[in-house]
Amino acid sequence: MLRIDADRFAKRFSKMSAIGRTAGGGVHRLALTDADKACRDLLRSWCEAAGFSVEIDQVGSMFATRTGRDAHAPPILIGSHLDSQPYAGAYDGPLGVLAALEVLETLEDAGLETTRRVQLVNWTNEEGARFRPPLIASATFAGLRSVDETLAVTDGEGRTYGAELERIGYAGRLRPGWPIAGYIEVHIEQGTVLESAGAVIGVVTGGVGIRDFEVTVVGEDTHAGPLPMSERRDALVGAASMILSASEIGLAHVPDARVTVGRIAVPSNSHSVVPGRAVFTLDLRHPDEAGLDALETALWEAFAAIGQACDLAVERRSLWTYAPFAFDPGLRRVMTEAAAGHGYVSLDLPSRAGHDAWNMARLAPTAMIFIPCRAGISHNEREYADPEHMAASAQVLLDTVLAFDASR
Amino acid sequence: MLRIDADRFAKRFSKMSAIGRTAGGGVHRLALTDADKACRDLLRSWCEAAGFSVEIDQVGSMFATRTGRDAHAPPILIGSHLDSQPYAGAYDGPLGVLAALEVLETLEDAGLETTRRVQLVNWTNEEGARFRPPLIASATFAGLRSVDETLAVTDGEGRTYGAELERIGYAGRLRPGWPIAGYIEVHIEQGTVLESAGAVIGVVTGGVGIRDFEVTVVGEDTHAGPLPMSERRDALVGAASMILSASEIGLAHVPDARVTVGRIAVPSNSHSVVPGRAVFTLDLRHPDEAGLDALETALWEAFAAIGQACDLAVERRSLWTYAPFAFDPGLRRVMTEAAAGHGYVSLDLPSRAGHDAWNMARLAPTAMIFIPCRAGISHNEREYADPEHMAASAQVLLDTVLAFDASR
Repeated sequence: MLRIDADRFAKRFSKMSAIGRTAGGGVHRLALTDADKACRDLLRSWCEAAGFSVEIDQVGSMFATRTGRDAHAPPILIGSHLDSQPYAGAYDGPLGVLAALEVLETLEDAGLETTRRVQLVNWTNEEGARFRPPLIASATFAGLRSVDETLAVTDGEGRTYGAELERIGYAGRLRPGWPIAGYIEVHIEQGTVLESAGAVIGVVTGGVGIRDFEVTVVGEDTHAGPLPMSERRDALVGAASMILSASEIGLAHVPDARVTVGRIAVPSNSHSVVPGRAVFTLDLRHPDEAGLDALETALWEAFAAIGQACDLAVERRSLWTYAPFAFDPGLRRVMTEAAAGHGYVSLDLPSRAGHDAWNMARLAPTAMIFIPCRAGISHNEREYADPEHMAASAQVLLDTVLAFDASR
Repeated sequence: MLRIDADRFAKRFSKMSAIGRTAGGGVHRLALTDADKACRDLLRSWCEAAGFSVEIDQVGSMFATRTGRDAHAPPILIGSHLDSQPYAGAYDGPLGVLAALEVLETLEDAGLETTRRVQLVNWTNEEGARFRPPLIASATFAGLRSVDETLAVTDGEGRTYGAELERIGYAGRLRPGWPIAGYIEVHIEQGTVLESAGAVIGVVTGGVGIRDFEVTVVGEDTHAGPLPMSERRDALVGAASMILSASEIGLAHVPDARVTVGRIAVPSNSHSVVPGRAVFTLDLRHPDEAGLDALETALWEAFAAIGQACDLAVERRSLWTYAPFAFDPGLRRVMTEAAAGHGYVSLDLPSRAGHDAWNMARLAPTAMIFIPCRAGISHNEREYADPEHMAASAQVLLDTVLAFDASR
């Protein structure tokens, strides 16, 4: 039985984690920044040194290919992303990319020929922390948005995705969206289900639905001193009331609901101005559509009531929506068997975080392998995963790729 | 009796208001930006055309001088500021600078010689919207901070006050802080007291105390999906609770208290990250120290309780403090008499906004003249003052300068 090289994998992971390192021990590598470019350059050098050709698509995603017996059969795609949230952890994304590289190299070292090509992917801007929406490059690959639309997206300072791609030298020629046989992604769980159960491998059953909104509260800017407080129309006080209400509504829909306000902006932005406008994001997650509908109904009612009580206008717009879905049962079965074969305790669980696999599931059989991360802490500099669990995930990925290749 | 030229005053005001004009009909002229430079250049051109020499001090404040009989006597200083809050009104500041210019020109046209020099001032960065703290240049003039300290202050993007002063060509040589005989400032009320009473001239009795703080709430950054909501330590939900509580505490201390949260930042700033940190400003105003103390006690107790309940750390630091004080009784009497002499209804009232007069009151007899602004709306593009009230303020300023000069 073919074995991955846990030591090589760990060393590569450690080198990648040194890029964009923060004082707090995490990484800060927003998409298409210099730190992202450094990660890409390092990945490319490893792939090319191992003899895998690297190509870039028009929205910057990187593809490293190991050839197969049948040059015309659609490839098996494996990978994840190298960009990060601001001041985040080193595991979210790179784990899946480097597990994919480890699989490619193990196949190469063994001289094992697969029927299909196996392609490693590093998706651009998975996080959506710099360019919104998240999962933008895989969505472009899946035909959910055009290349031009994606290149025209701007960051908070008005720079376009396209110009930044040019700047770091990753504006490629490949047209995204060729046929693929399947897609498999390794990722940390970012929750506590596996850790609590003492499991090493999570076989992801599917994804929860996600609906993201931007809410704008409009009152009246005024000076912090002269006007009596009772005459204020303070948009931030209104927004604060909505944020509390959103948290309470989420908690009222345990255990499945997640309601998060992750961004807030007050355009007046001055200590002595009563805010006349506040804008915040609202992220809703639930395993089923009815649950999402119930959250929306409760939230919009609560927000409208707050707006009315505080004499504030409330506007909302949808940013993006992902419907709940299930991953490929065949791939899930192979993963469960692979884990058992190595003696890894495995567990079925849904993913409550969005991943590029969401978009790939529209194109071909898709599945994900999770491993625990300590205390479920993620999007945080203290994010941590056990090297043994990391190695296990690469091994299960290898076994799954081989079984999938043989089954077609 | 000497009369100001209301028409000239209105025309100049209209020209000045065109600089940094916003789509919403206000102005956006943060300190030491190109728009601020354009205002300064226009003011200088008017002063020099009328024969008043213009000098700049080391922190960029502009001084235009009309000579007096006694070149050695400390001058009478009159003026205000040309910088604005973000997307703010055209009256807050420029009214006082242009009323001062109107006084100088009226004296000049009449060939009237005063005993003392009369000096117009345009203070740099009164608002504190770009460089904190506000009133920074008058505080430097009053010796409350050193020139070097002020030049080293940075804006939100890391640019220094000193470098920006050089960039716009207003890094002057005058050492701030020469002796002055008195200081008089005209300003809009920014509240509704005068409008409600049908008064034209407000004789400002003194200033309320102001205490500004920065509050940091610390929880734990985590992903918006996987972790159950009940396990979150969401700093923004904690901050929202504190903002509501601050508003309620302010409203419980009517009519005198003002409690404002004008800025808020969430460093993680991502739709899918539960905020582990939130930072907001807290501005407290009250006419007496005991009232300020009571507000502080109530706020810190409430914040501590929220922190405890939500498992969040709460840190606070003082940004600046102004004690309540009274303006010069002699100057106030002169103003009341001047208003009566012209048939303007006048009223005594405290100022609940901070002004550069706060700092000047430490150096010499100081007073302020207020006029109504529509519906009390200020720090807002819809800020508006009646041209007749504006003319009345310049006239009362002229009369006060002459009476003050004659009395010394």
